[in-house]
Amino acid sequence: MTQPSQSPVATEALAESAFLLAARGEPVPHTPVWFMRQAGRSLPEYRAIREGITMLESCMRPDLVVEITLQPVRRYGVDAAIFYSDIVLPLKAVGVDLEIQPGVGPVVASPVRSAADLAAVRPVTPADVSYVTESVQQLRSQLGGTPLIGFAGAPFTVASYLVEGGPSKDHAKTKALMHSDPDLWHALADRLADVAIAYLSIQIEAGASAIQLFDSWAGGLSARDYAQFVQPHSAKVFAALEQYGVPKLHFGVNTGELLGLMSEAGADVVGVDWRVPLDEAVRRITAAGGSPKPVQGNLDPALLSAGWESIEPEIDRILAEGKAAPGHIFNLGHGVPPTADPDVLHRIVKAVQAKSTRG
Amino acid sequence: MTQPSQSPVATEALAESAFLLAARGEPVPHTPVWFMRQAGRSLPEYRAIREGITMLESCMRPDLVVEITLQPVRRYGVDAAIFYSDIVLPLKAVGVDLEIQPGVGPVVASPVRSAADLAAVRPVTPADVSYVTESVQQLRSQLGGTPLIGFAGAPFTVASYLVEGGPSKDHAKTKALMHSDPDLWHALADRLADVAIAYLSIQIEAGASAIQLFDSWAGGLSARDYAQFVQPHSAKVFAALEQYGVPKLHFGVNTGELLGLMSEAGADVVGVDWRVPLDEAVRRITAAGGSPKPVQGNLDPALLSAGWESIEPEIDRILAEGKAAPGHIFNLGHGVPPTADPDVLHRIVKAVQAKSTRG
Repeated sequence: MTQPSQSPVATEALAESAFLLAARGEPVPHTPVWFMRQAGRSLPEYRAIREGITMLESCMRPDLVVEITLQPVRRYGVDAAIFYSDIVLPLKAVGVDLEIQPGVGPVVASPVRSAADLAAVRPVTPADVSYVTESVQQLRSQLGGTPLIGFAGAPFTVASYLVEGGPSKDHAKTKALMHSDPDLWHALADRLADVAIAYLSIQIEAGASAIQLFDSWAGGLSARDYAQFVQPHSAKVFAALEQYGVPKLHFGVNTGELLGLMSEAGADVVGVDWRVPLDEAVRRITAAGGSPKPVQGNLDPALLSAGWESIEPEIDRILAEGKAAPGHIFNLGHGVPPTADPDVLHRIVKAVQAKSTRG
Repeated sequence: MTQPSQSPVATEALAESAFLLAARGEPVPHTPVWFMRQAGRSLPEYRAIREGITMLESCMRPDLVVEITLQPVRRYGVDAAIFYSDIVLPLKAVGVDLEIQPGVGPVVASPVRSAADLAAVRPVTPADVSYVTESVQQLRSQLGGTPLIGFAGAPFTVASYLVEGGPSKDHAKTKALMHSDPDLWHALADRLADVAIAYLSIQIEAGASAIQLFDSWAGGLSARDYAQFVQPHSAKVFAALEQYGVPKLHFGVNTGELLGLMSEAGADVVGVDWRVPLDEAVRRITAAGGSPKPVQGNLDPALLSAGWESIEPEIDRILAEGKAAPGHIFNLGHGVPPTADPDVLHRIVKAVQAKSTRG
């Protein structure tokens, strides 16, 4: 739990940052805003720096990780940075044979089919990913009062790549495995929980101020399947990280039916896609008797190209609906599309911060 | 409203068919079962007959349409046939330049961008699709007591192909059009409502016993956008068909947030994907004060490859949950995947019919 040295002023600014205050449900100077996938494809300066370098290679070079993570902070003035990496990186780091194919996504050479295939899946150690520790430490010293969000893939979503062998529309092999061989499924998901715990712990110990667990594809599951096959493993991840005291965010697209269960798994902040209004999300989080929690979201990324006259009323509506939660972190309802106009994102950041500033 | 001549015995058997009884919420001899996309890709006899013939060409040849529609009825003994066609066929029939690319889907040469582009979108006349009338008439005389379901694409889903130019994950251009140029959007959707009305009317007048309006991709919309931009146009379709007195089914994948609104649009039977249990679907349909309605669904197609030990308990659960509705038509929660094993589908049909037979 060593943290890189930082000036007392920066440490205090960080603790008082709008993002961390909102994530803790405390009063904020303004509603914090950042974007999932803010670091990456939509930025010309990102496309320039990545030229000729593969995605996974770029995740392993601290000079690139630091620069790419900082690019959207500089350009947009967002209230949080998110570590530039990929959810399959910790698997790659322990020797799982996979690559990220441009325009496709992660492709796994030998998909998991039996218990013997699990041996390859082990938690990363700091030595496996020294470039991560180095990158996070550099970022912490450069980010000053801006929090850095570490992240990992949740067991189900990472498992879906390992079982399908790549991206999938319906996750049919993964669901078939859960139902037909629950022992193997739970063994795999348990290992992937350990992978996420190890990878997130390394990021937090190096200086990440919060973490987000992405269960990107959990929304393909019924609540019944989620509760039985997925929630316990995500809960293990959150429980193991409790000791660090950093806010834990949780998000998957299309998870309207799962918001209560994902909250129960141990998230401190529940991410919401555009399908469910934030005030309704709060109702779902509290429906099973839980306490209200901060929420994150939820502008439909499809509207980024609809013109400012269409975007501004949506910002107003989302800010108003977010007041139903004890804290609101403004974000899109999914990742920034590669075709997004950076000037529109910049305008959204400024508008959210200005509209929500306490008078 | 001329119906092809049929023997009085067949007409009576049809009226007493489990499918039509369930769709009307009347007592059934057994829970009827059919599968979305039962006619098509997963059947070897379909792949054989389609060899060397494009999808759209096959939809325009009555010999093929009749044979392909009948194949799953023969093989599985399902309780309903669904007309073999494609939701973009009526556009093709009036001269819109599009094709269905294998492995991709409908691709439109000149996507709709302005009011001038709407001129190409006009309702089909019976003369445009004489092969449809001929095919439906032949099917009615061959199907005897088995109902034939006609179908069309709902205005939003068909519009998404016209606006995006092809299949899309996020329907960003379509959503941007709705918000940035609502007049053009509503003009397009209104024309597509007329297209669906004309195409469904032709199928009903030729002898279809029920219709299903597919709003396959509506689940990508928030309830707010659906209510404002989509529901009025689907409602126009249902209202125009009311005169025929045939059951009107409505389905889209991932529409858990929209079930009440899709019901309100005028559906007699509400299709449900696997994410929402049927009893919960009934609650959502009635939440805004509506009457309970028959439902259709909702086995997760991903489970077709999970083995019978995993499938059978799901059938039992779905049959039990379906009792919450005044009628239940068993189906998958989405279309049959191309990789589905026909023997598994056959076993499901037999199991649903046997398990639900009144003792």
